[in-house]
Amino acid sequence: MSPEDSHLRKFQKELNAGIVALVLLATLAEAREPQYGYQIAKQLEVDDEDNNVMKPGTLYPVLRSLSAAGLLDSYVEPSASGPPRRYYTITETGRAVLQQWKDAWTSTRDFVDTIMKDSRHD
Amino acid sequence: MSPEDSHLRKFQKELNAGIVALVLLATLAEAREPQYGYQIAKQLEVDDEDNNVMKPGTLYPVLRSLSAAGLLDSYVEPSASGPPRRYYTITETGRAVLQQWKDAWTSTRDFVDTIMKDSRHD
Repeated sequence: MSPEDSHLRKFQKELNAGIVALVLLATLAEAREPQYGYQIAKQLEVDDEDNNVMKPGTLYPVLRSLSAAGLLDSYVEPSASGPPRRYYTITETGRAVLQQWKDAWTSTRDFVDTIMKDSRHD
Repeated sequence: MSPEDSHLRKFQKELNAGIVALVLLATLAEAREPQYGYQIAKQLEVDDEDNNVMKPGTLYPVLRSLSAAGLLDSYVEPSASGPPRRYYTITETGRAVLQQWKDAWTSTRDFVDTIMKDSRHD
């Protein structure tokens, strides 16, 4: 791994910290029924090698932390095909928080894009 | 502060972790001469209350950490109007890293925007 690669990995990791929570909350806000982790992972194609945002392993701790914060509810159900599955739904608080996070994302994204655009001009 | 506000602050803080470094590097890549912290802060309007990404206090530690990583060079010069100032320039490694970070930003941004767009449709 080159020094540049290690900088890139650190950058991507930091960039993802807030984004994974945003993406999970947005996904569960749209779900018509409770979803379990692997189901969400497949939907987000986190096993796609080109997808640097959501690695399968990063998803589960964030789901747990969103639950602990009261933004998601969860329950466990046995599965015929393997270990029991934990199903998640978004709470009312989760929906309110998601709306704020979306606004924060939009203004942050626009701020960064403005800087990047300026920096392409030279 | 409402519970939603505390979630928002945490989210914004996480979101900013990688972004502040990206914005600083991009700004210094365009600078025609070495710049000191306060100069960069003013240019980015970090004292704008609507600007949630770059609070003045978050800028300085990130400049130091980018220097420690070899992405910036710096030197100190006395100032007529106050304490000595530390001037920063981007290194060649910094430029190479910035190019990768820009690409990472673009693909991450597009990934998030796709999810957000899907979630607006319902």
